[in-house]
Amino acid sequence: MFSAKTYQNRRSTLQKNVSQGLILLLGNIENPINFADNPYPFRQDSSFIYYFGIKLPKLAAVIDIDKNKTIVFGDELSVDEIVWMGIQETIKAKAEKSGVSSTKPFSQLQSYVEKANNEGRKIHFLPPYQSVNKILLSELLDTKIENLQPSVELIKAVVSQRERKEEQEVVQIENAVNIANKMHLLAMANAKIGMKEYELVSMIQKLAADQESRFSYQPIVTVDGQILHNHYYGNELKSGDMVLNDSGVENPMRYASDLTRTFPVDKTFTMRQKSIYSIVHQAFKETQSMLKPGVEFKEVHRKAALITAQGLIDMGLMKGAAEEAVKHNAHTLFFQTGLGHQMGLDVHDMEDLGEEYVGYTPENPKDTKTFGWKSLRLGKPLEKDFVITVEPGIYFIPQLIDMWQAENRLKDFINYDKVNEFRDFGGVRIEDDILITEDSYRVLGDGLISTAEEIENFRAEHLSQ
Amino acid sequence: MFSAKTYQNRRSTLQKNVSQGLILLLGNIENPINFADNPYPFRQDSSFIYYFGIKLPKLAAVIDIDKNKTIVFGDELSVDEIVWMGIQETIKAKAEKSGVSSTKPFSQLQSYVEKANNEGRKIHFLPPYQSVNKILLSELLDTKIENLQPSVELIKAVVSQRERKEEQEVVQIENAVNIANKMHLLAMANAKIGMKEYELVSMIQKLAADQESRFSYQPIVTVDGQILHNHYYGNELKSGDMVLNDSGVENPMRYASDLTRTFPVDKTFTMRQKSIYSIVHQAFKETQSMLKPGVEFKEVHRKAALITAQGLIDMGLMKGAAEEAVKHNAHTLFFQTGLGHQMGLDVHDMEDLGEEYVGYTPENPKDTKTFGWKSLRLGKPLEKDFVITVEPGIYFIPQLIDMWQAENRLKDFINYDKVNEFRDFGGVRIEDDILITEDSYRVLGDGLISTAEEIENFRAEHLSQ
Repeated sequence: MFSAKTYQNRRSTLQKNVSQGLILLLGNIENPINFADNPYPFRQDSSFIYYFGIKLPKLAAVIDIDKNKTIVFGDELSVDEIVWMGIQETIKAKAEKSGVSSTKPFSQLQSYVEKANNEGRKIHFLPPYQSVNKILLSELLDTKIENLQPSVELIKAVVSQRERKEEQEVVQIENAVNIANKMHLLAMANAKIGMKEYELVSMIQKLAADQESRFSYQPIVTVDGQILHNHYYGNELKSGDMVLNDSGVENPMRYASDLTRTFPVDKTFTMRQKSIYSIVHQAFKETQSMLKPGVEFKEVHRKAALITAQGLIDMGLMKGAAEEAVKHNAHTLFFQTGLGHQMGLDVHDMEDLGEEYVGYTPENPKDTKTFGWKSLRLGKPLEKDFVITVEPGIYFIPQLIDMWQAENRLKDFINYDKVNEFRDFGGVRIEDDILITEDSYRVLGDGLISTAEEIENFRAEHLSQ
Repeated sequence: MFSAKTYQNRRSTLQKNVSQGLILLLGNIENPINFADNPYPFRQDSSFIYYFGIKLPKLAAVIDIDKNKTIVFGDELSVDEIVWMGIQETIKAKAEKSGVSSTKPFSQLQSYVEKANNEGRKIHFLPPYQSVNKILLSELLDTKIENLQPSVELIKAVVSQRERKEEQEVVQIENAVNIANKMHLLAMANAKIGMKEYELVSMIQKLAADQESRFSYQPIVTVDGQILHNHYYGNELKSGDMVLNDSGVENPMRYASDLTRTFPVDKTFTMRQKSIYSIVHQAFKETQSMLKPGVEFKEVHRKAALITAQGLIDMGLMKGAAEEAVKHNAHTLFFQTGLGHQMGLDVHDMEDLGEEYVGYTPENPKDTKTFGWKSLRLGKPLEKDFVITVEPGIYFIPQLIDMWQAENRLKDFINYDKVNEFRDFGGVRIEDDILITEDSYRVLGDGLISTAEEIENFRAEHLSQ
């Protein structure tokens, strides 16, 4: 945990930013895998962690704005439970470390909320993402699940705090990035022809676990980098393949990292792999150089699209003028994803609170219609202390190529004959985690090799051992 | 998957054992960790796996007894989804491999169930354990969650099938046991003074993942073996400690193993560790020799209690006659847990369906009041082809000792002065997975060392390297 002062300050800012009523923050509850006594590893809700720092299941907190008091609701272990679970620090003691002096049994939450509800006071809550908390909220508020109305005022207040990272948070994120850096080097050093993808996964998982960390998301570790949502690890690594490794951790303080590198199974990239890789790397570097407060991330994404289009035009896969091609979204045949997202306590930070607040603003709403653009999670102007990812990529998706070609879509910009020569190419992505500073940016962590040359040198060195 | 014939036979038996109406089997749905796009690794419901073998999320199946037809409900990937997820085998193709020829979109489930409901037909369903399926059932049946009534007839029919393991299932369980055997030897070979518990966890997790397997439950790997529900791995291994390693896997076919070994951090057990260990090992061996069809597992548990009591009497920790001591439950100061449980597709097999059907019978109901006995998950007579665990243990729980001593509980059987000399002892458990055969039993897997001497020899050999 951070200091009590940290949590007190965060809560007092929150309280100032929400006009009246009471703020109800639910912690998470254990989720059974196949029966009640076999739950998934517990993970506390990120906003609850942010304001209270306590990682126990089945807690809730009320910040009563009208009465200016804060209560943590939760059940201390019974004597029976102490016999089974050992002596543990009490909720009361943990709450005190978070600067909260008042704790009550969980069962009293219902009456507290009911009373406020009956008094017609506004009860602010965040959008529930776990079904068990949807059911709980529905009971607490005596409202059908489908009628639960999260508080936009609260969402905006939470987002405005959590998206500006404190220095101590940046230190933690950097720690998570450095663990991930080591995971990426480990995979890059050990990948060999004939291995299975899951062997790379188990290797990097061990490295994370040895640092008391765990994956911040199910990693993508695949020779099929063009399959964008891919949690299959059963393929064998073959000569000529590239491995796309998109993996990061949550460190013990629960801050996330999210990194991607793509490297050849052989010692070197093939010529055409290197050509595509170089375009992605150029986008990776040149978009970063734009980053600073005030810049709309939508425009950074557009820059990545332009570089991608220009590179593919130079290779003969696209044609026409890059500007025009991007205007018509021709680049989205190859670059279907968004360039990045916020990152912090969540790998897609605060995605549970809604992209319309985290990634966009009312003045800068998301384009939810256009292929490619609708996958961009972050579009709004950057601000100092934001932490974001930058992750350009080029992907050859045979099904998408076939769909477009069947209707000869954007034929003035796409050279389908040439594209079809690449239909078995796979995909390339490069991703770093970046802090927006006063007037520029800083790549977090101690640095991880990214150029084709650096990667080939590293591979050559390790494969010859 | 097993053969289509396997699933067809299982379903046709089920259909015969449920009188009328329709059987609604829900598959699992992905559970978000912190937002919808970041789910826990998907795990299909075990009963769904048993009758259909299909591991995709968001499926449901109806076995319509009255109309003698079986339908799998689920949504095939849209073109958009294929672009993001790659081409995958369709639900239709998977259903055919399971011997089901009829598949329909998930949205049609609602009207199918509604129609049957309106016709007054009985809709049988199993107890939902995941909140998302509670919500779904509540919608499908237009009933409040708290009023959902699982079908006892269906539960009994499912239990009677799943608890008798087919030969091909035993092969799979044995595979899972053998992976776990290797995990236990790995931990035993590598544990060293100064290591953290989580380093052992990461090591065995890697071994499992390298076999495309994962933990079947959050393992207990601890120097605090007396903390029975313990998922903390932050302690350092110190000279004089014992490591209790309770871990098993789910193999690629989704069958579980569940093994425990306890070993010294030094090369050898201390004298008093060896004394306690030998009692547990005697209980481990002698209870197994009782196992055969017809024997009530409650009596096997009682035998373990007797051996434990006699051993502790011989050591001077208990006193009086063992029979009397066990009659008064004096052994539960040291042996608080149950001797075992069923195991199969779930590590506690079918625990979601209810202990009153899986572990007990109406004629042999569970003792839910008495400390110790209320933790025994299995009490009923064993039958051929059951797979069970046998896991005696002795645990010194300081809080429990203090509770009992404060009221001088069962002072004729407990020598509190002597017991208090052991209050920092920790705990010992030894556990194997066992098949009940025609007239005896068989320990599953290729065998794992268990005597104090075997373990000391193994430790000595590996620590000297």
